[in-house]
Amino acid sequence: MRLVAITWLSCLRRHLQTKTRFLHTLKGPQSDQILMSPTLASLDLPDIWTPISPCHSIPAIHKSFNEQTARILDGKLMSAEIRSKIADQVRQMKKNVGKVPGLAVILVGQRRDSVTYVRNKIIACEEVGIKSVVTELPTDCADADVQNAVMKFNKDPSVHGILVQLPLPQHLDEEKLLDAVCLEKDVDGFHPINMGELALSGREPLFIPCTPKACIELLIRSGVKIAGKRAVVIGRSNIVGLPTSLLLQRHHATVTIVHAYTENPEQTTSEADIVVSAAGVPNLVRGNWIKSGATVIDVGTSPVKDSSCEDGYRLVGDVCFEEVIKVASVITPVPGGVGPMTVTMLLVNALDSAKRMLNYT
Amino acid sequence: MRLVAITWLSCLRRHLQTKTRFLHTLKGPQSDQILMSPTLASLDLPDIWTPISPCHSIPAIHKSFNEQTARILDGKLMSAEIRSKIADQVRQMKKNVGKVPGLAVILVGQRRDSVTYVRNKIIACEEVGIKSVVTELPTDCADADVQNAVMKFNKDPSVHGILVQLPLPQHLDEEKLLDAVCLEKDVDGFHPINMGELALSGREPLFIPCTPKACIELLIRSGVKIAGKRAVVIGRSNIVGLPTSLLLQRHHATVTIVHAYTENPEQTTSEADIVVSAAGVPNLVRGNWIKSGATVIDVGTSPVKDSSCEDGYRLVGDVCFEEVIKVASVITPVPGGVGPMTVTMLLVNALDSAKRMLNYT
Repeated sequence: MRLVAITWLSCLRRHLQTKTRFLHTLKGPQSDQILMSPTLASLDLPDIWTPISPCHSIPAIHKSFNEQTARILDGKLMSAEIRSKIADQVRQMKKNVGKVPGLAVILVGQRRDSVTYVRNKIIACEEVGIKSVVTELPTDCADADVQNAVMKFNKDPSVHGILVQLPLPQHLDEEKLLDAVCLEKDVDGFHPINMGELALSGREPLFIPCTPKACIELLIRSGVKIAGKRAVVIGRSNIVGLPTSLLLQRHHATVTIVHAYTENPEQTTSEADIVVSAAGVPNLVRGNWIKSGATVIDVGTSPVKDSSCEDGYRLVGDVCFEEVIKVASVITPVPGGVGPMTVTMLLVNALDSAKRMLNYT
Repeated sequence: MRLVAITWLSCLRRHLQTKTRFLHTLKGPQSDQILMSPTLASLDLPDIWTPISPCHSIPAIHKSFNEQTARILDGKLMSAEIRSKIADQVRQMKKNVGKVPGLAVILVGQRRDSVTYVRNKIIACEEVGIKSVVTELPTDCADADVQNAVMKFNKDPSVHGILVQLPLPQHLDEEKLLDAVCLEKDVDGFHPINMGELALSGREPLFIPCTPKACIELLIRSGVKIAGKRAVVIGRSNIVGLPTSLLLQRHHATVTIVHAYTENPEQTTSEADIVVSAAGVPNLVRGNWIKSGATVIDVGTSPVKDSSCEDGYRLVGDVCFEEVIKVASVITPVPGGVGPMTVTMLLVNALDSAKRMLNYT
């Protein structure tokens, strides 16, 4: 078993060396280039993690904690509590000003996971009384089709939140289309101004992206102290890893982002009091990655084939649950942890947006 | 001497506890509040570091490296090389299109350090042939006065870069005034859109803030490998700490930000291969904060009274130079390290801006 771990680490190291060589080729200055630093665009490389062996092949190294079991946070239960409060406020809003929050969703294509996520969001809206509308576009639609849909919702006063379900098909210009969403309705918080204002102290974005907001709410509701603690965020995606790191820092954690280019990710992660994993790699985070007593928030949701499930697949997290539960003090399950809370934060953002746009307090 | 260190650490710990209590008082949800997470604005607390004892009172713990001496990076020399290339390109531009880059500086009040910085920037512009213009306003001027100056330069086609010298007097609305600088002329890169695009992978800001850009250029020119390495940025200011951490991450370092709320900052810092200190606290970073062989970039420039100097004061960095030089492999001095390179990056940004605005390649 030890051999498996070593082999995997060697793979990761080789992978890193290859990527590093690639980086070096980017660095050579061109003749008319004043600086040696390359342009940022050329630095963007895919964060490819080497596939991980099945979860049970490496035992947790903290054998003395084999009997310990972490507290499992129930994202569904917390969501139900919050959604009940949202429903109350939506009812009050309807009674007082005759209006309810409106959420518009743009879905391009029929990716199975995207269809499921959109369906869950729509059901959640219905539950709390938020009006929702979905525009479905074919996979081969043009940028202009998506942009027109965005523009229509930008102008519609009954719509207080607009979300473009990601990922978009590769031929579409995601950057341009996300930028087209009017800032006041950007309930996903993906606009660069919202991200810049999340990063800058002394400023406040109109919206905090839903998954990072869900992670913080889970931590606070579970009584986990954030200020002063060491936090590791695994993965640096624009929609989860990056904004989660910025938000944890605003809560005064000492934050490190671990990514596919990190040397010894297990060592760095094992120093953290709080680990948020959002790499999208099943079973990446093993028992030996976690400090005894740490809090582990698992954002990963990778579909894995499973004929015993209704849809033919099940969702698995980044965290090897059976190993980590023996080491951590608090853990979120997949499914039923961050997922429902993320949808709930979307409802919160939509409600907040409607309040702001209707000048309703 | 050991006692001094322990006393200081106890102070820091007490200070942290006080601040943490304050944070807890912020956390209690109000009756109509749906989430337990506080608003971001209420999280903003000043990063106050406890004053540090003089540099020579705690010896470096790495006694075996007492004889080692780090390579000192010469920021002036590197700057001279880069400025010579800038001057060439400005001459070429003048010859080819009859225009030179133009930089406008707005200086409010007569803070001694700000006056010095502005003077250095103007001299540097003259050296390379960039046209510069300074608008000086009295300390008690109104927001509208600064805004008018910004607007005038926004419209002036001979101005390709605008910088508002910070810090502004407290009564002015820094956020509003920085946002007024037109994005295409924001050579300081402080606009939230520029910051958001620096943070988001797949995007590229029009300008990278000058000090972070200087740090990366220093590292690359010195042959220090960044990708995959552990980097610690000390301090999380909007103008240095935050963008430096984002930029190091875009260069694929594994980045941790250490701030005044970090527990055991010396422990976290001592794990880093690259340390960039931008706390503005003289002698904060001692020999025992640094891993043997690490690279140390000192961004701190605090004025300290010294009657033997011409101006009655001298600038000191965050790093206890005489201790750290025995442990690190590479170090920047203060003055003569990051300072001149920061001004040089301003020249690069102004030139790049002029090229972009004049469609000149």
